[in-house]
Formats: sequence, C-alpha cells, structure tokens
Amino acid sequence: MTIKNRRIVLASRPKGPPTADNFRLEETEVPEPKDGEILLRTLYLSLDPYMRGRMNDAPSYAPPVNIDDVMVGGTVARVEGSNNPKFAVGDLVQSMSGWQDYDVSDGTGLARLDKEMPQPSLALGVMGMPGFTAYVGLLDIGEPKPGETVVVSAASGAVGSVVGQIAKLKGCRVVGVAGGADKCRYVIDELGFDACIDRREPDLNENLAAACPDGIDVYFENVGGAVFDAVLPLLNVHARVPVCGRIASYNATSLPDGPDRTPALVGLLLVRRIKMQGFIIFDHYETRYRDFVRDMSGWLADGKIMYREDLVEGLENAPEAFMGLLEGRNFGKLVIRTATD
Amino acid sequence: MTIKNRRIVLASRPKGPPTADNFRLEETEVPEPKDGEILLRTLYLSLDPYMRGRMNDAPSYAPPVNIDDVMVGGTVARVEGSNNPKFAVGDLVQSMSGWQDYDVSDGTGLARLDKEMPQPSLALGVMGMPGFTAYVGLLDIGEPKPGETVVVSAASGAVGSVVGQIAKLKGCRVVGVAGGADKCRYVIDELGFDACIDRREPDLNENLAAACPDGIDVYFENVGGAVFDAVLPLLNVHARVPVCGRIASYNATSLPDGPDRTPALVGLLLVRRIKMQGFIIFDHYETRYRDFVRDMSGWLADGKIMYREDLVEGLENAPEAFMGLLEGRNFGKLVIRTATD
Repeated sequence: MTIKNRRIVLASRPKGPPTADNFRLEETEVPEPKDGEILLRTLYLSLDPYMRGRMNDAPSYAPPVNIDDVMVGGTVARVEGSNNPKFAVGDLVQSMSGWQDYDVSDGTGLARLDKEMPQPSLALGVMGMPGFTAYVGLLDIGEPKPGETVVVSAASGAVGSVVGQIAKLKGCRVVGVAGGADKCRYVIDELGFDACIDRREPDLNENLAAACPDGIDVYFENVGGAVFDAVLPLLNVHARVPVCGRIASYNATSLPDGPDRTPALVGLLLVRRIKMQGFIIFDHYETRYRDFVRDMSGWLADGKIMYREDLVEGLENAPEAFMGLLEGRNFGKLVIRTATD
Repeated sequence: MTIKNRRIVLASRPKGPPTADNFRLEETEVPEPKDGEILLRTLYLSLDPYMRGRMNDAPSYAPPVNIDDVMVGGTVARVEGSNNPKFAVGDLVQSMSGWQDYDVSDGTGLARLDKEMPQPSLALGVMGMPGFTAYVGLLDIGEPKPGETVVVSAASGAVGSVVGQIAKLKGCRVVGVAGGADKCRYVIDELGFDACIDRREPDLNENLAAACPDGIDVYFENVGGAVFDAVLPLLNVHARVPVCGRIASYNATSLPDGPDRTPALVGLLLVRRIKMQGFIIFDHYETRYRDFVRDMSGWLADGKIMYREDLVEGLENAPEAFMGLLEGRNFGKLVIRTATD
C-alpha cells in the first residue's frame, strides 16, 4: 500500500463562522525531497484563532490562504528523509507545514527541537508562539508593575493562561475572564489567578468591577465584544491595553449597530492617558525570542508556569476542532496529533 | 475711582457649543493679599480647547468648573503687591489665575518669568503649555524617525504648529491639516511643512492620501471627526498616534450614528500594530519640562521655530474668542490681552 499525503485545503471562504464546507480533505502523493530538501512528517498541528483571518480574502498582516491551498499552521514534524546535510532522519523540527501529513522543506525557517524533548507539542504552546505572544505582549506593551491589577480575557487559553501566570510572577493582582465555570475554576485553582469571571454569567460588568476594586492597570485583549466593553470603564489612568486578538469579532460579517462609539473610546484614551497597542508576534522574534526561551525554560523547570493541552487525535478532525476553538469549546492549547508515534 | 476686579464666571453649562449665556462678566473688589500672599494683575490670558471640557459637569482628568466660579485658565501676571519675600512688585509670573483681572496667590505653582522678556505671552504658547504638549506628544509618544511621514491636525494652531516644526527638525516629511486656504498657506510658507490639506475642501480623504504617498507613520491627533477618519486607512504598520485632543467632539451632545466602528478601529490597531496613546501634559512636567525649555529656547534663538499669536484685546472679549476657538476661527495661539502696559 502506497502511503498518501492527507491534507486539508481551503475549499471556500466562510461568511461568518466557518463550516465543514469551507474545508476539504484531499489525498495527494507524498512529495519527494529534491536535492537540499528534507521530507517532514507532521506530528502535531497547532490550531490558533489567527487562522480565521487567513481564510478571508482581505488585507491583513499576512496574505490570505488561496482557495484550494493547504490551510496554514504551525507544526512539529519529524524528518523522514533528508537530502540536506544539516538535517538527519529522526530530527524533530518546528515548521509551518500547515494542515497536512507531509511537507518538503529546504530548511528555511525551521527550528530544531531537542529529540529527547518529553512533550514536543509544547513547542506549539507554552514554549512556542502562544507563550511568546503572552510574554512580549504583557511585558513589553503591558509593562506590569507589582501591585497593579492585570485583567486577561480568554484566560484559560494558550495565550491568556501564560499572560496571567507571568503577571502573578511579577507581583500583580490577576483577574481572568473565561467562558464557563470549569474554565474559571481551573484558572483560579491550577493557574493561581486571584479571580476569574465567567463571561457567560449575567452581570459581567458588575462581576468584573467587583473583582477589580482598584480598577484595571493592564488589560490583555484577546476577545473584544462584551468583555472589552466591561473592561473600558474600569481602566485606570495610565492603563495599558496590549491588543493581541479579537476572537469575538473574527466571525462577524458586519459591524455592530450604532451609535458609533469610536469617539467615546478615543476620548477615554485621552482623559485617562491610556495606551492601546496592537502587536503581532512575528515582529519580535529577532529582539526578544532569546529572552523568552531563557525565562520560560526557567519558569517551566521551576514549576512556576502551568499549562494545559487540548489534544485532538487525527488530522481529519482539525476543521471541527477549529470551529470549536472560535466558539471557545476547547479547554487549553488546542493541538491536533497527526501521527501517533 | 476704586479699581474693581472684572472676572468671567461660568453662568451655566453649555449643551453643545457654548453661547454667550454660559458666561457672566462680574465686578468684585480687588482681593487683598494676606500675610505671605501676593496680588497678581493678569496681563495675558491663554484660551485653550481643554477649557470646553471643564465647562461640563462630567468626570475628566480635572474637576469641572463650578457654576458661578471663575473660568480656569493659564495667565501671565505682574506682581502688584507683595507680602511674600520671594516676590517683588513688578515681577512677572506665569499663573493659573483664570479669566479675571486680579488674583491673590501664596506663590504655590507660580513660575517666574524674566522681567526683560520681550514677549511674555509666549509663556502661554510656544514656550508654555502648548509648546510643551507638542514636544512631549511628538517626541515621547510619536517617536518620529527621519524620513517618516508625520501628519498633524489643527496644524496652524498653538500645538500643531510646533508639532510639525519639531518633526521637520527631526527629518520627517510633515503634512498638516488645517481649516481654510489662508491657514494652509501659512503652514507651508511660514512654518515649512511639506504639504497642508484644507479640511474644508471636498475630497479630504483623497487629498490627504495624495499628500502621503508613503502612508502615515505618526498622526498627532488634535481634532477627531472627519480628519481622524481620513487618517486611519493611511496609517502604516507600526504607526504611532499620540492623542492630544478631539476638538471636533468637544461640543457633541451625543455619539454619531452607527454602525459602531469600535471593532474596526481596534482591529486596525491589531493588524497594523499601531500604538494609540492619550496624554495630558500635566503628567510630564517633572520628567521632561527641563528638556523642553532647553531645546525650545535653543530652537527659538536659532530661528528654527516660528509662531503666531492671535491676540485679542480685553477680558470682556474672552467668551466670544473662546467660542471662535472651538470653531477654528482663531489663527495662531489665541491669547487675551487683559492689560495694556
């Protein structure tokens, strides 16, 4: 039996929330590595909210995925064949192979992982892009100081969980916002946040205000929508708002009804001297990745940062898992295991 | 004939644009300086857009003016009587005496001016709060780099004119936005901006885009409204937006009609990694005022910074002049001369 490459391509662009129709599972030949190339077998595929943006045919910080092209995604892969002296069969690498079983690469942009790494999928989570996003966004843009109050939305997620734990290490009061009682319990009991507000409960505004008696000094924005609205009136003078994501808006097909609150938002930034700053992690590898790896390795070794993976078996289940991610159905860093060895 | 103190108090709170009814000119006794106090005669009164906010009974960065209280305002005054050994009759000081002829002070918060200063009113403009606002907002928040494009609204005004000229000194391409052909000519011919867009002309969006072929790296926000809307699509990746004022909104009694464009604004900040930051100059005297005085004194001495005053004679004309300021009828830094010696 010939081994095939299974891959999931963008079949059509979603209008609103993605559906199964927007994806297509295909089988193609396993590609042959040419001279200087290596063959990669995907072991783990990371699913992340940013992928929703790439499904749109709209200008963003990266080009959209073309129709019939493989969906983009960060992966942990094993070298299965090598025509490149820098890589040996059996090496583990972090790559951007996307939603597929096999890929070829000339080695550009690959990061080698320790073959003895007990849990290589962490390179897609706490030790990878989401962890680095949390680190840069909180420390460089949020600039938390001891005693300040830090609020983070999507608090049990891949980024939010790390934001809150680093903020605790920096001596802050940390309040999470998450969807559901289970997640809130986890955020408090396992991650050590001081409080966590269930955004699905009524009285979000009142509950958040009660959990932040001294207002909010840093709001790490992952979600937008009602959580953002609840945060705004609580922002203190000189608050900082790193804008990492807006998952509540990703599936929106139009703007919310009026009035247009833009002048109120900008007016609030002025009166309270607030900094709001968007960032994308790709800008920061050159200057800060080394610091992140040093700090995060230490924190993990000392048991100071906890993490949770939501591991889904089988590439074929990636579309369903991704749709769930956009609705907050995952619990922890969502990773697809594409091979079981 | 006894000399009286004329003063202008807040008679009622405006709904929308202020009207003459909102102000009342009163005559009271000239106050007597007690032990340790000095009597101040106002020579110049600064009129600034922030005063509109103080007329509202709404939380802001400073308490509102109470009904029947003297309108707030920065002044240049002469010491006319002194029971304080630190001040002699004839000294010139910068004070916050408000819209009135006379004031008493124990000296707290007063800044002494050089008695030989040829144009003491500059302490209310290019050498004072507006100039310092421009300096901090542009340099510390805008962080302009040589070759970048800086856009400033209210470009012929007290703050905007200084922002643009400092940006030119820093090697930037500088585009102003101002109201009317006369102001635009002045901004280009006298202040040396590279271009100036008349916001009253049709096709503001197209005109601004044509003047910024490489996009906008720094937008110094003074006005909001249609100018802000024209700027947004032109902001480059990693643009900085110091938010200094929103004069187009100050008289608004309600938010504009929908849709609510807040998610689009925050989404733009994210995708283009933009920093938007409000600031208020009172926060920065301790750390940056000394630098400002050193740099600005040098620039003025070298003829590198031009300025223009719109000098109005007579305290009684302050309300009318202030209403005009909010409509952009002034041309240059608006100052009331309250005494002619």
